[in-house]
Amino acid sequence: MSELTEFLDTVRRKTDATLEQMVPRSDVEPARLHEAMRWSLFAGGKRIRPAILIAVGRTFGADGARLMRTSGAIEMIHTYSLIHDDLPSMDDDDMRRGKLTCHKQFGEATAILAGDVLQTLAFKTIADDEGLSCEMRIKLISLIADAAGTPAGMVAGQQLDLDAEGKTLGIDEIETIHRGKTGAIISASALAGAIIGEASAEEQNCIEQYASNLGLLFQTTDDLLDVTEQSETLGKTAGKDISSGKATYPSHLGMDRALALADQIRSQAVSALLPINYDTTLLQMLADMILNRKR
Amino acid sequence: MSELTEFLDTVRRKTDATLEQMVPRSDVEPARLHEAMRWSLFAGGKRIRPAILIAVGRTFGADGARLMRTSGAIEMIHTYSLIHDDLPSMDDDDMRRGKLTCHKQFGEATAILAGDVLQTLAFKTIADDEGLSCEMRIKLISLIADAAGTPAGMVAGQQLDLDAEGKTLGIDEIETIHRGKTGAIISASALAGAIIGEASAEEQNCIEQYASNLGLLFQTTDDLLDVTEQSETLGKTAGKDISSGKATYPSHLGMDRALALADQIRSQAVSALLPINYDTTLLQMLADMILNRKR
Repeated sequence: MSELTEFLDTVRRKTDATLEQMVPRSDVEPARLHEAMRWSLFAGGKRIRPAILIAVGRTFGADGARLMRTSGAIEMIHTYSLIHDDLPSMDDDDMRRGKLTCHKQFGEATAILAGDVLQTLAFKTIADDEGLSCEMRIKLISLIADAAGTPAGMVAGQQLDLDAEGKTLGIDEIETIHRGKTGAIISASALAGAIIGEASAEEQNCIEQYASNLGLLFQTTDDLLDVTEQSETLGKTAGKDISSGKATYPSHLGMDRALALADQIRSQAVSALLPINYDTTLLQMLADMILNRKR
Repeated sequence: MSELTEFLDTVRRKTDATLEQMVPRSDVEPARLHEAMRWSLFAGGKRIRPAILIAVGRTFGADGARLMRTSGAIEMIHTYSLIHDDLPSMDDDDMRRGKLTCHKQFGEATAILAGDVLQTLAFKTIADDEGLSCEMRIKLISLIADAAGTPAGMVAGQQLDLDAEGKTLGIDEIETIHRGKTGAIISASALAGAIIGEASAEEQNCIEQYASNLGLLFQTTDDLLDVTEQSETLGKTAGKDISSGKATYPSHLGMDRALALADQIRSQAVSALLPINYDTTLLQMLADMILNRKR
């Protein structure tokens, strides 16, 4: 097993164990709600955001145990956003990762509540993290709330994406949407790792640049995957972005230029790490992995 | 103007001013999202939860300014729950407080996002409250997340309510639903006031009992109002609980016994205040007001 594969495998195992502890069991009432939360949380996600957080934390020598609750919290925020994104009035997806989406399995009302409460639990998970000082917990909650919120976070990006349907966007507008929808939480994951690892302000700046490019790379390769992959591999309906007229890099730039842009963004991510006086091999590997990923 | 009316008026004014500051302006992008948040936040709510928080905080001598951000945060959580509750797959309400509901005005997708992001902003508002120590902010976030979440909080109560539709419930089951749906956030409002007012553990216990009864009283009178009031006064579709087969006290006990139960709950709330060595007149007035309220 390569170093990266081993790392990702450990992240997945530890994140799953953390989430398992944080979320009420599915035999606790209201059972249907807890089943729905677990259905989506344990649907085979790659745990890329925890991987980024933990990789950055490790880079600055943070003890692994101190990184887990915040990683779990970010995965809860990510999962809540997927559940709500899949709803009929949003992207209207029946399948995700080869499984029925939450509302298809449990009905819309329960899916809305499961998403709502995953967000609540995310903030509670950090607030109750006795391994971190109160000052650090407050910093993390504020950081993640900014990244999940508005005007520059995830929900803002989703709204801009809604507003954009059927319109022709410029490349800057596409980038703004991407930075909100996907980039903000990816950046927050990296910064959270740097905060828990007690990185200096300068080091946090480098990580911010790295993560900002990583987030953009993630969305770009997501768009590219939507075009190149078959539905079977992707586990969701492929080509959907184009058929629904959504703003993407490939639809705007064409495939070749979008692929070249992805290469360029990956280089910018890796260059941002140069001033850091720790071993950043793992962080470079993550950037390469995102560039070359299959779902 | 009576003392209580004056107090409630001040609460409304100060809560509105706090919310005005916290929520992005509606000319900031994504404008539609911010308009939707504001539409529901400034829809003429009575600010009862802030009133409870501020009344308890004042009882223990807390400086008013220290109470405002947490009050605003709780009102955001309450508003997010109303927006999501009104959605077609939940209660499917077109009107609230005489205005179109958020999804009727802005569409379902934007309403879902506006609710989501009000929850995010609530936690951020407390995390960024520099008037309170980090320890206190963490305590408040944890308290409010429990009250808004699962297994004993607001979303849990909403799920139990969904699960109960069409079934015949016992009085204990109705109470469990009420304690979650409404009681938990009312209790948390009171306890948050006690925490910011640095009440002793014993005093916090009294407030917890007071608030627990206050929450139950609130839901009981809500059920009673649903039966007795006309649609015009209520600003929403009256008689809806009964027509949809929802579990309520009047449907279970009949009107007379439900009214007597409300009286009894009010007495329990007020009795819980007896051991407190501060002037609790305002807290007693709030209980009376809830007992006798019209919407």
